Parts: sequence; structure tokens; C-alpha cells
Amino acid sequence: AGAGASADELVPDWSRAQGAPISGYGQPSPFESGVVRRARTKPPFPTAASTGTPHGALFGLITPSGLHFERHHGGVPAIDPDRHRLLVHGLVDNPLVFTMDELVRFPAVSRIHFLECSGNTQGWATPDPKWTVQDTHGLLSCSEWTGVKLSTLLDEVGVRPEATWVIAEGADAAGMTRSLPIGKALDDVIVAYAQNGERLRPEQGYPVRLFIPGYEGNMSVKWLRRLRLDDKPQQGREETSKYTDLMPDGRAREFTFLMEAKSVITSPSGGAAIGAPGFHEIRGVAWSGQGRIARVEVSVDGGASWRDAELAEPVLSKCLARFRLPWRWEGGPAALQSRATDETGYVQPSRDRLIAARGVNSYYHYNAIQTWSVAADGEVRNAA
Amino acid sequence: AGAGASADELVPDWSRAQGAPISGYGQPSPFESGVVRRARTKPPFPTAASTGTPHGALFGLITPSGLHFERHHGGVPAIDPDRHRLLVHGLVDNPLVFTMDELVRFPAVSRIHFLECSGNTQGWATPDPKWTVQDTHGLLSCSEWTGVKLSTLLDEVGVRPEATWVIAEGADAAGMTRSLPIGKALDDVIVAYAQNGERLRPEQGYPVRLFIPGYEGNMSVKWLRRLRLDDKPQQGREETSKYTDLMPDGRAREFTFLMEAKSVITSPSGGAAIGAPGFHEIRGVAWSGQGRIARVEVSVDGGASWRDAELAEPVLSKCLARFRLPWRWEGGPAALQSRATDETGYVQPSRDRLIAARGVNSYYHYNAIQTWSVAADGEVRNAA
Repeated sequence: AGAGASADELVPDWSRAQGAPISGYGQPSPFESGVVRRARTKPPFPTAASTGTPHGALFGLITPSGLHFERHHGGVPAIDPDRHRLLVHGLVDNPLVFTMDELVRFPAVSRIHFLECSGNTQGWATPDPKWTVQDTHGLLSCSEWTGVKLSTLLDEVGVRPEATWVIAEGADAAGMTRSLPIGKALDDVIVAYAQNGERLRPEQGYPVRLFIPGYEGNMSVKWLRRLRLDDKPQQGREETSKYTDLMPDGRAREFTFLMEAKSVITSPSGGAAIGAPGFHEIRGVAWSGQGRIARVEVSVDGGASWRDAELAEPVLSKCLARFRLPWRWEGGPAALQSRATDETGYVQPSRDRLIAARGVNSYYHYNAIQTWSVAADGEVRNAA
Repeated sequence: AGAGASADELVPDWSRAQGAPISGYGQPSPFESGVVRRARTKPPFPTAASTGTPHGALFGLITPSGLHFERHHGGVPAIDPDRHRLLVHGLVDNPLVFTMDELVRFPAVSRIHFLECSGNTQGWATPDPKWTVQDTHGLLSCSEWTGVKLSTLLDEVGVRPEATWVIAEGADAAGMTRSLPIGKALDDVIVAYAQNGERLRPEQGYPVRLFIPGYEGNMSVKWLRRLRLDDKPQQGREETSKYTDLMPDGRAREFTFLMEAKSVITSPSGGAAIGAPGFHEIRGVAWSGQGRIARVEVSVDGGASWRDAELAEPVLSKCLARFRLPWRWEGGPAALQSRATDETGYVQPSRDRLIAARGVNSYYHYNAIQTWSVAADGEVRNAA
């Protein structure tokens, strides 16, 4: 920064002509056209795909709805909300079908929560040094969700004592189905119809989805059309073929719903070039499916020493918490890490500890400490 | 709600075919195309106009960025962030010009705050019964704002002891300029480059704006290009011809920056038809430029009796707070009102009290209790 130019010389073209008029629904600047969701891997066919949130280009705890990660198994259905129905039946006294207008009339709650796919962060195998934070942690987003508590709807239908599971089914072509224990269903689960103030985006389940705070994203069934009370889980495709964790001894852990504490530095992160030595603010996000984040520590020497980062208010339960730490880069190599602790005392594990406990056969629930290596030239690369 | 149809009969067309593929940047459902910002009044010319947030169709405390209200004096400039500069000069030791990259490198803060135009709610004159809450309260929105604290930049340039005001100037064709007292400038003002997680939208000041929590929206100068430290206010057009409050005795109040406590019921609200008697949840928002909302009371009988509404967590400072109250509409006429009290003890005034104190010559700073009348047929109308 310098002050060589006079104020007058600094008046640019866009100050000398009238700008664009008002608009009905705003869009990002064309100069931000590179800040988009990107396909994670080449999908087997176009409608079974996922995209990741570009955390390296974002700020704050809210993810813009247009950049919330996607995961579809049969594409995004175009649902007419006036024709959509939610059926609640099974082991209940009084099965009911709800219209959208009826759902919106019930007492509502709004909660800011993260949503993370349990397939987020493929750190089990050898890390790809080219991966950005969008590649490593893009299946994570955070929004304000509004809807009716599932417990309110279950009160309406009258859950029978023998009902121990809720089987949730989507209206997409995949008929996405997951099983949810009744205890969680009666706790903090939301039947959500709004996100960040407006009705859900189509790819987030318009007109209504399940939202299960702190549990793996796949369970928050989108385009929700049916809730069936049962005395056992469904053991469907998404609970047996997928979403289990294969251990070194050949046995699989099933029903690992909870997303444990995790964190990642978003700036600087993979693909960035730090530039000149000097002041940089290390920034990132931390979250836990068990509640609030209590502490985030940051290391710039690959874990040899740690310093407490500042947590930005508000720190909410099962929500992204922003952390920040001032750092003076001296120009040499560095290894940046963050380590989250949640209010239960759970500490995010190192990669070595996680792999020692769970082996490398798993696909889901990788929550180890992320390392970004900084080279002497300032290039930042994924080092798992 | 009934359960006449079998689950199979309820399977709609959209469950029987693959849906749409992933997308780079999501958009609302076409079924929500009516939820848009609308022009407030016919503008004198297309680039001097404003649009309001459709609060009657929204939920939660975050306003989607695409629906944040607009007010432009010379249209929306299309600014190249790489060429944009912010000059800080005047009564400083070391005038500086900042690039956007330099601004983003400074320590950052993220805060969720409301922004309200002081021209919001034209209740001084006879109310128009056709007005919706978008018409009456649309120049109000709430976002998470991220940027560098103005105090940080002022530290860099070194404010001289005689500097008592900061004159902020926009890079739009109007050269929008406002004066800000140094005390507030050194308190909680943000030089903001991000909104709800992503870079500012063009109509919100891309690439950088001033954000002054709790003060009238006009002062949060968009497309910020210059901050000049001075020993007096500028007394520019927006401080003399506009943004003063004409009292009954012919004198005008100047520098009424603070937005005092206010609230409005958003559902049910003007233009709605309640439908059948029975359960309805009264929902609305409350806010104060002085800090947190402490209490919201709701009346369904035009102020004869009041009940405390529930405030939804989190209740943040200078931020929209959501309130809710269950209500059983018996089918007769009703008059719905809400009354906010903030943490300083300030109570939102009735219309009569406000007009008794300030007369009806003013245009700005109308914060009286809003009344929605419910007719016996369920039609809801503005009754000021």
C-alpha cells in the first residue's frame, strides 16, 4: 500500500457512469465466477454425483445456499410443493399425510447447523498433494435450517411403545432410505423446509427434507416423502453396502451415525501461494456432532508445538466454529495443522492415531488432523 | 391431513425418472419465483431505486443474499476487484491505499447484523391497507458480514488527535458520501468484503463496503473507495437535504444515526388469508441498534393485552431476533401487534406515542408498533 496517486487519479470508469438497475434476485459478481461447487469425482452417470463447497474462497460460518455441497443418487427431482405429500405411518396410532401448508403451520424452529457427508475427506490412502480444501473437506457446509421438529409430527401420529426406529424415504428416483433411532428422532431432528431464510434449494431437498444435527449427511434424507415407524432398522442398501466402516479384522462397524470433532485450516490451504513472508492470519473451521467446539489449537510445525486459536462468536452446538490465529511466515517450510476439542472433551485424532485404531479399509468417518505443507517458495500443498 | 391413499398411490412422477444433474451454483426452485425483491416506488430514474426483502415468505434470521434489500443512488457499478482501491487519508500520519488482497490479509471478523434503511416503514401518514410486510418493513435484512475492523485500518494510518469524523465515499456514480463520528469508527465498524460466507454481491457493495452495526443503512457506504479523516462532518447532501428528521416546530434533528428497537409480525401479515379458525403460530422479527433484544410481547387485541413471545436462540447484538407465539384464531376480528424491548430497557413506542413526540413531518426513523388487522373472513390487512 502506498499513497502516490492523488484521489482524483484514482477515480475509475465505473464511478463515471450510471450502474446497473435493481434486480429481483441477486447473483454473485461475474468476477467471482470461479467460486463454484465442483464435481468430486467423475460420476458413474450424471445423476449420481456430488459437488463440494469451496471453503478456500469462503468466510464466516454460513455457507451460501448456492454453494452448499450436493450429493445425489438419482438426480434432483423437480417437485411441485402443492402436490408433495409427507406420509407418517407404521407403528403409530394415527397415520397421517401432511401437505406442505400443513407442515409450515406447525410450530417452527430455526437452527444453524453443519452438515457433513461421512465420505468427506478421503485421507485413508496416500494423500494427493494437489488436493485443495474443496477436494479434502468440500462435503461439509453450514446453514440455518427452519422447519418443524420431527418430535412434533410424531406427537401428532402417536408413536406406539414398540416403535424403536424411524425409516425415512426420499421422493427422488433413488428412493433414498435411511433408518434413524427413535431416541434421536424425538431429540433435535428437524423436518426442514427452509435454508438460510428461504425455502430449500431443489438440490437440498425442496420442498422438505429431514435434518439430523450432528449425524452423517446421508441420513438427512432429502425430498422427504415418507416416515415409517418400525421396531427395527431397514438394513437397506445405504446401511449395508454403503455407510459401514470396514475394520482391519474384516468386521464392519454399522450405524456409526455421529460425526466426531474435526477441523481444517481453510486459509492458507492447498493450492494457495502465500507470496511474500510476513503477516498472515491462519483461518479455519471446526465442528462436532456432539455439541459445541470448546478449543482449537494450531501448529505451524507439523504438531511439534501448538497454540490456542481464537474462536469467533457465536460458537453454537453442532455448527461450524470459525477460528483464527495471527502468524508471521518467515519464509521457510512449515506444516500447518489444526486440532479441535469439543465440549465433551473429545480431541480430534492425528492421522497416525486414527489409522492405528481403524486401519485403512474404511471409506467413511475420516476426521484426522489435516496437514498443509508450506514450501520455502510459499506454495501450499496437501500433506494429509 | 388424512391417510386415505396407500403409499404406492402417493408415488409421483418425479420419483419415477432421474432428476437434474449437479450444478456449480444453486438457485431457488422455479416454484419460488414469486419470492423476489420488489421495487418500492416508481423510481425517478432506473438507477436511483430501492427494493425490499419479502419477509412474509422468509424464515430464520439470515436473509438470503439474493433477497437482501437494495438502495442505489446511481445504480450498481461493475467493479473489477483487482483494480479497486481504498484510500485512507486526511488527518492521519500515514495515508495509505489498500488493494483488496491487502484488505483480506488483515485480521478478519465475522458478525451477524441487521441492516435497516432509516426510510423503512412509512407509517407517518395514513396507512395503506394493501401494504404487505415487504412494503412496510422490506428495507431491513440480516446477514453475516466478514471484513477487517475499521479500527485496524485506522491503526495502520495513524489517526491524528484532532480527527473527530470519518468521511466515507462510495465508488458508484452517485459518489455516495456520509460522515461517521470517530468514536463509532473505532468501535465495531467493519470494512466488509463478504456476506453470508461469500464475497459481497454487486448490489451490496462489491468488492468492499462500510458496515456500521446498528446505524441507519445509508451510512454503510457501499463500493467504498475513500475514507477521509476530518475534524468536522461533511454536511453533504445525504446529511442535510436527506436523512434529517423534521420536527413539528420546524426544526430538524440531524445525525440521528441510531436505529432504535423495533419489531414486526411477519406471519400472519398484510395480504395473507388465514383460512380456517384454529392453530396458528404468530412469527416475527425484532431488532435494536443498541444491542440485544431482551423481550418481545405480542397482542392479538390491538394492545389491550400482551403475552411474552418466545425468542429463538441465538439472540445476538444488533441482529434480527426471531420470536414466536402460539395462537388459536377463533374466527373473529383481531388486531395483531408486537412490541420489542432491548437490553438497554428501551421499549418500542406505539404509533400514537411516536407521533406525539415527533409529529408527522418526518420521513426517517419510524419505529412504532405495527398493527395487522385480521377480518372475520381471515383476510389480513395493514392497519399501521
